[in-house]
Order: sequence, then C-alpha cells, then structure tokens
Amino acid sequence: MPELSIEELKQKVWLANLALVKAGLVILTWGNVSAVDRERRIIAIKPSGVDYDVFKPEDIVLVSLDSGQALPRQTMRPSSDTPTHVHLYNNFIKIGGIAHTHSRNATSWAQACREIPCYGTTHADTFYGAVPIVRALSPYEIEQGYERNTGVAIIEHFRTKHLDPLHVPGALLSYHAPFAWGATVEKAVESAIILEEVAALALNTERIAKDAKPAPQSLIEKHYLRKHGPAAYYGQPGERVQVDKLI
Amino acid sequence: MPELSIEELKQKVWLANLALVKAGLVILTWGNVSAVDRERRIIAIKPSGVDYDVFKPEDIVLVSLDSGQALPRQTMRPSSDTPTHVHLYNNFIKIGGIAHTHSRNATSWAQACREIPCYGTTHADTFYGAVPIVRALSPYEIEQGYERNTGVAIIEHFRTKHLDPLHVPGALLSYHAPFAWGATVEKAVESAIILEEVAALALNTERIAKDAKPAPQSLIEKHYLRKHGPAAYYGQPGERVQVDKLI
Amino acid sequence: MPELSIEELKQKVWLANLALVKAGLVILTWGNVSAVDRERRIIAIKPSGVDYDVFKPEDIVLVSLDSGQALPRQTMRPSSDTPTHVHLYNNFIKIGGIAHTHSRNATSWAQACREIPCYGTTHADTFYGAVPIVRALSPYEIEQGYERNTGVAIIEHFRTKHLDPLHVPGALLSYHAPFAWGATVEKAVESAIILEEVAALALNTERIAKDAKPAPQSLIEKHYLRKHGPAAYYGQPGERVQVDKLI
Amino acid sequence: MPELSIEELKQKVWLANLALVKAGLVILTWGNVSAVDRERRIIAIKPSGVDYDVFKPEDIVLVSLDSGQALPRQTMRPSSDTPTHVHLYNNFIKIGGIAHTHSRNATSWAQACREIPCYGTTHADTFYGAVPIVRALSPYEIEQGYERNTGVAIIEHFRTKHLDPLHVPGALLSYHAPFAWGATVEKAVESAIILEEVAALALNTERIAKDAKPAPQSLIEKHYLRKHGPAAYYGQPGERVQVDKLI
Repeated sequence: MPELSIEELKQKVWLANLALVKAGLVILTWGNVSAVDRERRIIAIKPSGVDYDVFKPEDIVLVSLDSGQALPRQTMRPSSDTPTHVHLYNNFIKIGGIAHTHSRNATSWAQACREIPCYGTTHADTFYGAVPIVRALSPYEIEQGYERNTGVAIIEHFRTKHLDPLHVPGALLSYHAPFAWGATVEKAVESAIILEEVAALALNTERIAKDAKPAPQSLIEKHYLRKHGPAAYYGQPGERVQVDKLI
Repeated sequence: MPELSIEELKQKVWLANLALVKAGLVILTWGNVSAVDRERRIIAIKPSGVDYDVFKPEDIVLVSLDSGQALPRQTMRPSSDTPTHVHLYNNFIKIGGIAHTHSRNATSWAQACREIPCYGTTHADTFYGAVPIVRALSPYEIEQGYERNTGVAIIEHFRTKHLDPLHVPGALLSYHAPFAWGATVEKAVESAIILEEVAALALNTERIAKDAKPAPQSLIEKHYLRKHGPAAYYGQPGERVQVDKLI
Repeated sequence: MPELSIEELKQKVWLANLALVKAGLVILTWGNVSAVDRERRIIAIKPSGVDYDVFKPEDIVLVSLDSGQALPRQTMRPSSDTPTHVHLYNNFIKIGGIAHTHSRNATSWAQACREIPCYGTTHADTFYGAVPIVRALSPYEIEQGYERNTGVAIIEHFRTKHLDPLHVPGALLSYHAPFAWGATVEKAVESAIILEEVAALALNTERIAKDAKPAPQSLIEKHYLRKHGPAAYYGQPGERVQVDKLI
Repeated sequence: MPELSIEELKQKVWLANLALVKAGLVILTWGNVSAVDRERRIIAIKPSGVDYDVFKPEDIVLVSLDSGQALPRQTMRPSSDTPTHVHLYNNFIKIGGIAHTHSRNATSWAQACREIPCYGTTHADTFYGAVPIVRALSPYEIEQGYERNTGVAIIEHFRTKHLDPLHVPGALLSYHAPFAWGATVEKAVESAIILEEVAALALNTERIAKDAKPAPQSLIEKHYLRKHGPAAYYGQPGERVQVDKLI
C-alpha cells in the first residue's frame, strides 16, 4: 500500500512549491517541484504558470510515470517541464522529488555554461564534487521534444561521468537554470536551496581570489562522509538521508 | 462602452504602482506606472513625487492621450515622466500599460549604456532578443521637451530596429533607467520585474564567464514561442498574452 | 519662537534614526542622526552605542551648538561623532539635519577612497556632480580631536571645491563611511538613502562597463534642475526643497 | 556560585542561536553558538542538525569542558563542531561564547583562503588588524580528529602571530567558514555579524579600487581604542567590553 493518500501527496508537493518561494528562490511563476509515488506509478507536480497567491493543494496535477500524460480528470495543465521530471524519475530510480528553479546565482552559472567548482565545505556537505553543467541541446533536440531531451541530456551526463544522483543532487542546464533533486521532495527543495547558496559563494570566491582552488580532496571527503556515509555523525540519529555507497 | 469605470481604472493603476514597491523595484518615489483607456482616450498615471505610504487610488491622475495634459479637476500633478508615457501609447498602439522604475540592476545596465544580451531562457521567455539600449538625447533634445523626446528616442529605436514592443516589452535609456510595458498594466509590471531579474542574471553571468555567449537562437525561439507563439503551451489555456506574429 | 517644542524635536530625531534602520542602512548601533534648532542653538542627537530595540525619544541627547557639550541633566552620553555634527552645523549654515551611516555600498566607496562619479539621472536627481571623497586625516589630526577634525576636513573640501552642501548633500570619508545631510532631518535621511543607492548603482555600472562614462552635463543639469531649480516641476507644488542658486 | 542557572544558560544560548538566523547569517541548520560556564566547567551548545523552527531552549546540549563529552541524560546529540568549541574555550581563557556560521561573505573569503585586510573604520572598530585566515588541515589532521584539529589550528595561528582573541574576535578557516567569539555569548553573536559585514565591505572595496590600501595605522588605533581601550568613550558608561591591554 502506498505510504501517503493522494491528498497527502498533493499537500506535500504544494508545501514544497511554496517553500521555494519562501526561501527566495522563485519569483513570479518560475519554478516547479514534483514528487513521485513509485507504487502508484504517478508523479504529483505543480500546474503550469499558476500564481502562487491563488495556488491550492488540489491544483497539483497527477501525471503517469509511464505515459508522461496527465491522469484523467485533472483540472489544470501540468508544468511545461513535466517531461523532464518524468524522464529523471524513470532513470534516477532512487530519487523521490525534483525541484526546478531559476534562482539567481545558480542560473547565472548555468548561463555562463560553467560547472560550480567545490570551493569549500559548505558545498562538500551536500555535493560530492563540482555541480555539473549539462551540455546545450542541439536545434534538432530542441525541436523534437525539448523538455524530454533536457532530461535525456542530464541522464547522459550523469551516466558518462559515473555520477550518483544522490551524491550530486542537482545540475545546471547550459543557458537555462538548475534542476535539483533528492530522496524525498523535502530533500529536493533543500538541494535547490543549497545549490543556490553554493553558487553565490563560488561567484564571490572567484572575485576575492582570481586563482581560487577547489578544496582539497581529503576535506571534501571528510565533510561529505560526516553527513552521508555509513559512519555519518552529523544531525540526530535516524534523521539522515541514507545513501548506499560513496563513488 | 469602456471596459472599466474610471474608479476601477484608478484602482488598477494604484495597485500596479504598489506592486512595484512590494517587488522591491522602487524606493522613495522613484517609479511610475500608467494604464491607457483607448476608448476614452485617456491615461491614468501616478502623481509626481508622492509618498507611497499616503498615496490613495483617488490620487491617480487622468491625462488626455491627445493633448498630453491633465484633465480638468485633477487634484494632483501627474508624474513628470507623463510625456514619455503619452508618446509611447500613441506609437505602440497595442500596449495597455507602462512601468518606469530605477530598479538597481536594470538601471546599472542603463548607466553603463549597454544592451542586455540574451544569455538564457529566463530572458528568452519574455524578451525576444537583447533588451535594447536607447541612445542618449542631445543637449537640444533635452532642452526642448526632455520627457517627450525620451519617448521619441524609444520609438525611433524600435522602428529602426524593426522591434515589436510586445515581443520586446522594455528598453533601457542611456544614463537613465528602464521603461517596461505590456498588453495590460499588470503585464507592464511583470515586464519590469523580469527586466530587473534578467539584468541581475546577465551581470552575474559576465562575472562568472568573461567570454559569456548569448543563448543559441534555436533555444531562444523555443522558449519565446512556448510562452507566446500561436502554439504556446506554457500556462493554463486562455491565460496567455496573445501576440500576432513573431518577427 | 522655535518651531518645535523640545519633545517634538526629540521625537523627530528619534523617528529619523529609526528610519535608517528600517531602510536597511544601519545594523547594530552603527549610525546616528541629528537635527539642529538654530534658534535655541542646540542640536538633538542619538545617544552613543544604544540598542535600537530599547531606544526611546527621551533618550535623544541635547548638545550646545556653541560649546559642543551636552546640556546639563541629559541622561545619556551623545554619539561619539557629535563633534563632527556640531562642526558641520556651524559651517553649513543652511542644513537642518545630518545622517551618518556605515551603509554597505557607500562605505565600500569610502574604503576604496574614491569619489562616486555621476553615472546617471538617479544620481543627478539629488547630487549635482560626483559624491566627493574627503581626504584621510593625518596622525596629528586623528590624535588632536579626531571627530571634530573629521568635520573640519569635510568643510575644507567643500570650500576648496566651491561645493554647496544643499546641492551636494553628502560626502564620503576616506577609509571610513558616508555623512549625508539636508535642509531638514527628513531630507538628511533621504540623502543617506539615495547616497547608498547611488553607490550601489555606480559599483554595478563599472562592473558592466569597465570604461563607463559619467552622464553628459546637459542631462545632469536637466535632472537636477527639474527637481531643485527655480523652475522645478517634479513633485507637488510647495513640497520641494527650495535652494537658492545652482553653482 | 555560578552566575546563571542551567535553565538560564540554555535560554541564553538558545536566543543567541536564533539571533544568527534573524540576522540572516544562517540558513537551514548551518550554524551553532555555544556559551561556557567556567565555574561548572561545562559548555552549552546547539544540538546537531536541528531545524530552527522546532528548536527549543531545553534542546541545548551540555558538554563537559574537560572530557569534551555530552553530560549524561542529554536528549540530543551536540553540534558536530563541539570539539572545536571545547578546544577554543580551553585555550582562549577569557572568551565566554563562540558563534560558527557559513555566512555568505565571510565564507567566500574563507573559500578564497585570504585574510580580510582592515580597509576601514567599520572593521577597526571591532577587529584590531586583519581577520586572520587559518591554514588548511593536512589529510592526517582531518582523519585524526577533524573538529578538534580545527580548534588546534586556530590556536596555533593566534599563538604564532601573538594575537589576542579579544582584540581579534574571529578567524576564517581555509576552504571552510568563519568562527567568531567574544567575552560573552552575546558578544560572540555580535562578532559574527560584524565579521560578515566587514567581509562584504572588503569584497566591494576591492572591486571599486583594485589597488585598495588598508586604513592607516593611526586611524585603526584611534577607532579600536575609542571603543575598547582604557580611555574608551564610545557607548554608555559601564557597558563596554573591558579588555586588559592592547597588543
């Protein structure tokens, strides 16, 4: 039996969408968060272009994980980025939520088409290594299913570079903006917030030292493992995101 | 018969002016928003230099679209930028609202006398191509009707470059600040908010990559058209700004 | 007879001090505002180092314009910058209020020991020309009455450069921070807010265009005069700061 | 007899932790403040990774200053940075509180591995000279007690450079973030706020003037001494942090 009722699922996704606004990562309608229910094989996602002031839990749209189409009787149209979400859920099988924003600093790195180097422990606490930059799509890929191909490019990048999406819970899309994710929808929102902060820190770091160097590997591993490894000791017992292995 | 009563029109323009303050685009009295009522041939505009704390809907000033003068029996003097608004309404015949601010990032680009390159999809979703920089006025133009000539220079720029004001809903005035507009006064406010954000992103983008390149044309077109073209699929049905053609 | 009672004067200065905090120009206890009562020959100024949360109108300290000393029976010690205020009031005889902050952007220009060039109309609306940078004090001047000599250096700069303090209502102190002023204490607070914004805009402008040029003289004069000259037409009738002449 | 009851101590530390969030220095769970009770030989510190929204005074964890271990019957696990705090209290014997944050600007300097030069009086009012950058730890030090060795490196730096922790109430850890402290836990929070502001100012100062110079020594000494020396005259009588000597 699924863990949550449909109403609880919608409520959770609604709250996660509002959390991005509250955290200052979203202006106007520029963001969308979804959660997956792998047992029911559906995702619950924000409707497209809806004003946060009037947005209600029942407006959350249910979409089939198999067909990528909205289920019958949905009152609103799902986010135009839905095919990206669906493709990510079908390929990153351990993630439970996805958050897409145009948050200012992360989007600036995306527009600059640069990965974010791991300049310190704030970064290393959540992202094991650089935040990747995913290549721009070809005109053909843009024409033939732009949003789905955005997901395809992300997956291709992670497979080619052997990155585990729970150790690198986000990426930047060239000329576009960040996508972030996590084991749960709450973790996805947290990844988006951290990605934005890490982007701001890295921008400043390079202004302060033109020749800034990434943090030493030993420090990166220490910080990542004290939060995420089998011997993690940050936080209170039982509250940690459990990850299987460190690549 | 006009769509709105005079009271409703004033209320709408009053709310639009306050929305700019709430969005953080205006400090002190540095901004003004107007709407046009083309049937009555009037514009409704913020009074000049009035404190937002005491500003009421009935303070909105009505101005003739033909003479550019305040109608009889207005209690306050209209914004000193009124001649710019009037000239824009008389030449951009599809726009319904105009928003002028000194918002920090857009004003910085205006002071630097540079257009804002289209570095990514956040920009392309609203502005089809760069945000234009309008040339500085000559001493003679400044002396002989400064505010009206500001409008003249904007129109000249759009005509010379064959820009459609609904596809490029704003511009920067050299050494001054941005003007933004839209099909409605609400859209004008939205254009001003987006212009400010796009300006911030572009500034950061150039700091992260000195040789930043504008987004590929295929991506710009995809993003602009998914929101604005005849086959637009962003947002909910019936809510889109309808534009006639893409240049 | 003086225009205000002592209680009204204290209330006004108290509100002006709080306005700086509300405008985001002051953190901790880093700021002080004063007003002068030229008939009574006193100034009313914020007490030194007092927490804004507990600060009350009756805590405002009265200081003699002649001796520079607190009047008898004041319950608190005046701001340590009091001698600067007193010296400015005794030499800028048309100013009615002074606001000193360590606001982020203006202080950064002060620390960089650079004047703020007039890059646009936002600046020209209030400051006629660059915001001046006042020279650093000598070790001897620091030792022999640091705060008074700060005022002496400001006055020296304005006299040498033939600047009128009502046309240039503020200055930056090398390695220190801004002082701003105006015809009234409310205008002084406004000058401080505008100086901070102008500093932020200029910093950004130079980042966007390394070779940024000051605004043309004709534009500077137009903007300054439409707000301040005898033929000013910005704002509502009777509300303008009246200044005598434009240098 | 100790000055405060255990409940009062916990309340004070709880408030200090919330003050950092309110001041905008902490997002998510990224910060921790502690106070020491030297008579009871304990420290009171924030629990690890706990959400500020649900965090209560009774969640504050008591830790032995001698063993570095949590006292019996604590309900939560102390901050993972506890060994750093314990080592600092045992070596900086006059400090009463410690605040660790990942505040944006200070962390950027830490990631850039640069000390913050004393560019002006805002800095000199609190930090006598540059804010030091503490060397990165070796892989061995990271492996063998990372958090304790972080404290060891700070102490080593202050001893080698003959710095007094009450005159230089904070430091940056290479590739990591700032630690700040003070004679009381309230002063520690204040040091953290000032360090963040000073970091922001210095970053801007170098952008405005590539060849920015530290403030003259005479000015630094004047500002530091008017707040902290035996002849201090800033603030109200009896409220000053009393320090013994100026190095």
